[in-house]
Amino acid sequence: MSAQVQAGISLGELAVRFGLTLRGEPSLTILSVATLARADAGALSFLANSRYRKQLESTRATAVVVSAADEAVCPVAALIYPNPYLAYARIAALIHPPPPPTPGIHPTAVVADGARIAASASIGPLAVVEDDAEVAERVLVGPNCIVQYGARVGADSKLLSRVTLYPGVRLGERCIVHAGAVIGADGFGFAPDAGTWVKVPQVGGVRIGDDVEIGANTTIDRGAIDDTVVENGVKLDNQIQVGHNVCIGAHTAIAACTGISGSTVIGARCMIGGMVGFAGHLTIADDVVVTGCTLVSASIKQAGSYSSGMPAVDTRMWRRMVAHLRRLAKKER
Amino acid sequence: MSAQVQAGISLGELAVRFGLTLRGEPSLTILSVATLARADAGALSFLANSRYRKQLESTRATAVVVSAADEAVCPVAALIYPNPYLAYARIAALIHPPPPPTPGIHPTAVVADGARIAASASIGPLAVVEDDAEVAERVLVGPNCIVQYGARVGADSKLLSRVTLYPGVRLGERCIVHAGAVIGADGFGFAPDAGTWVKVPQVGGVRIGDDVEIGANTTIDRGAIDDTVVENGVKLDNQIQVGHNVCIGAHTAIAACTGISGSTVIGARCMIGGMVGFAGHLTIADDVVVTGCTLVSASIKQAGSYSSGMPAVDTRMWRRMVAHLRRLAKKER
Amino acid sequence: MSAQVQAGISLGELAVRFGLTLRGEPSLTILSVATLARADAGALSFLANSRYRKQLESTRATAVVVSAADEAVCPVAALIYPNPYLAYARIAALIHPPPPPTPGIHPTAVVADGARIAASASIGPLAVVEDDAEVAERVLVGPNCIVQYGARVGADSKLLSRVTLYPGVRLGERCIVHAGAVIGADGFGFAPDAGTWVKVPQVGGVRIGDDVEIGANTTIDRGAIDDTVVENGVKLDNQIQVGHNVCIGAHTAIAACTGISGSTVIGARCMIGGMVGFAGHLTIADDVVVTGCTLVSASIKQAGSYSSGMPAVDTRMWRRMVAHLRRLAKKER
Repeated sequence: MSAQVQAGISLGELAVRFGLTLRGEPSLTILSVATLARADAGALSFLANSRYRKQLESTRATAVVVSAADEAVCPVAALIYPNPYLAYARIAALIHPPPPPTPGIHPTAVVADGARIAASASIGPLAVVEDDAEVAERVLVGPNCIVQYGARVGADSKLLSRVTLYPGVRLGERCIVHAGAVIGADGFGFAPDAGTWVKVPQVGGVRIGDDVEIGANTTIDRGAIDDTVVENGVKLDNQIQVGHNVCIGAHTAIAACTGISGSTVIGARCMIGGMVGFAGHLTIADDVVVTGCTLVSASIKQAGSYSSGMPAVDTRMWRRMVAHLRRLAKKER
Repeated sequence: MSAQVQAGISLGELAVRFGLTLRGEPSLTILSVATLARADAGALSFLANSRYRKQLESTRATAVVVSAADEAVCPVAALIYPNPYLAYARIAALIHPPPPPTPGIHPTAVVADGARIAASASIGPLAVVEDDAEVAERVLVGPNCIVQYGARVGADSKLLSRVTLYPGVRLGERCIVHAGAVIGADGFGFAPDAGTWVKVPQVGGVRIGDDVEIGANTTIDRGAIDDTVVENGVKLDNQIQVGHNVCIGAHTAIAACTGISGSTVIGARCMIGGMVGFAGHLTIADDVVVTGCTLVSASIKQAGSYSSGMPAVDTRMWRRMVAHLRRLAKKER
Repeated sequence: MSAQVQAGISLGELAVRFGLTLRGEPSLTILSVATLARADAGALSFLANSRYRKQLESTRATAVVVSAADEAVCPVAALIYPNPYLAYARIAALIHPPPPPTPGIHPTAVVADGARIAASASIGPLAVVEDDAEVAERVLVGPNCIVQYGARVGADSKLLSRVTLYPGVRLGERCIVHAGAVIGADGFGFAPDAGTWVKVPQVGGVRIGDDVEIGANTTIDRGAIDDTVVENGVKLDNQIQVGHNVCIGAHTAIAACTGISGSTVIGARCMIGGMVGFAGHLTIADDVVVTGCTLVSASIKQAGSYSSGMPAVDTRMWRRMVAHLRRLAKKER
């Protein structure tokens, strides 16, 4: 993952390929990417967050991707683009391409006779692919992954290691699923019966679109009756919990440790912070931003930013704030 | 998991078997379950949440399980029962029975000579069962599961895939444990020693009762000295953390992402929302309800409902609320 | 894990070995550890938390480790030490030593030709060690663990079961990593591009120091460019999320379910409660205490204790508190 291209690529070629404005010598060669602070000769860096501007002034990178506004401060060659982080992402993907999966089925993998595995797919050591499962072209099923009965993995997707796809889960194309993710476990459905609980069979599935990334140890439950749905381009960080029959709209990004209760529908292009909790049966509009550690307990009908995470203060002051709030609430009873 | 019974079952038989009042033609046949909105001929649906009543009015299901109060609105055959969700759960389990495990030990499983495996148990591919472990009748140890030294799995329980039971963990009968769950890892016990930490050996075990369900990627730590205990009928959702020496009382249900610190004792029949945090060494009474995203920092002695999750508002308004609270607290110092 | 030493150890020997003051008969023999409430003849217990003092008065342990202040209340032999919990930890480790790994590579493990495995290391059943990985002396790579390309595990470390170390991850000596932990998955880095997201390659690594313990299902992401760093002696509980380029200072302890956003730097010797959320790009001083369920949304420059977890109250009272806060905030608009 830290492999470098051997030959390097010139600034001129980068400028042409990605539509960047170059200020500097087109023949300079980039061999790797680096942070502004640690860059050295041959390294490309970028400035996307103004808190690192001081580091730009003293960088020893060969070139830096900057916005036009920051170009003047850049002491070395500059590749100018309105969204430097985006240009950096594209260049870094060129310089550090992920290793292509090696086609074939490892001899220690357990692949059922009824599984359909594309010839170009890679099934890693100790992976399990059950009957009627389908693994498309150029897919990576990494070590210890489990693709259960009737599950489907679309072309060019990668299950990196010990991912479980429960029976019938459908994963689109070009998805990346990180280690420990569990897709399709039973939703949390129990009917009360005189002080005990009766399990409600979870007979729905999970449908995941194309270009979805799913973080390590994230869990996405199968639907109770209909499917749980994750639309195209959704990005889920680590340790996220997606309850049964949730629907997450296209290109929504959700940070780590967030939990979404059953049947909540989240719109497209939302940006959800970390450790956010969504109650169940809500509808969240498109283009909603929710900041970290917020509890969303009601539907949100309008795009905008929403919050309820209480910021830390000195513990003694915090105790006073809590006591104060309680007193006032009692007074008004 | 979406397999249907081939022959179907008549409304008359369902009414008799589950003690339901039938309004409609007893010979109508049910082939599957479906939501009110998507049901078609042959499907059974239910209405348990009034927010879906509109969908009842236009459903195309063959029959719907409803309460007496909703019967009049039901445009198709009605199976009437005071708790429609419960009746639905039982019918769905009949129509969609889980596939029975295939007895036997998969040739790729690694089973120690000293493990005791019942003849009717199913040990899946690439599972590991260590010495002195005991796997009872009709148990499923799914692919990549690990049952370590001296652990015990009671009859009819299912470890679905890549579950780890650490040494000595005891699991009761008819339990379901989902993928990625870890039971019996060391509790978080360290003694301070001049700015460093000395590990406190975690020599207790974990005892889990009968009819317990444990969600994907949930973790239950072993006790420091005595055991961590989960009593009969407890239902744990995904990504829950149960600290060492916690005791969870019978038939308590806990939603996803909740964390319970060490030595806290939770009563019976409690209903705990998602992302709730319990401090350690607390005692929670029976029949307590805790709503989502609440911090329980003191013992709760009386049944009732408890909360502290702050609901989301517009971010600018939220900033004013926080600033206001701080000002008042400072004033009173 | 509940194995006892056969021969036992005398109080006299314990006092000498650990520098404790003995009040009682030096020849009395300790066979096991136990809680005050459940101890019996042959058992050693301890009192470290004053809430258990009542149990001290009636304990039937053979001996108890106590502070000088509690000695008078101890009805049986006393081993006196200023920090009884620390003395107990050391004694318990002597009485209940972890079983030593059995050297050798299990025949079902998949070890690449280019992996370097020390002769005294133990590679368990169905483990995977990829090319160029390095496993040092006396390391345990437990069942179903995955050590990917170029990763390194330092001497005497233990990966207990189904741990994944992604390519290039470096783990120090004497570390313990519990089941389900994922170290080195991609950080959550995406650049916005006209309503979609472009993946930013995560080309940094993860460096973990010596004597680090990592809990079950905890995830530590690899750096975006530079490494994510966990320094010596850090203790991480279960289900913690460590974002890319986080740095956690030496001997900091973090309780379960806490999440740390990218590029945040936490100082040394901090004590972080459970379910704490850290925003990204923060700097937290050394010796900071953060209580459970707190949101740390700004840097903390001074040692001290910080909080924002709102304690649970009766749900009706909670509703009034929330309503009150909203009214005041509106008034001031």
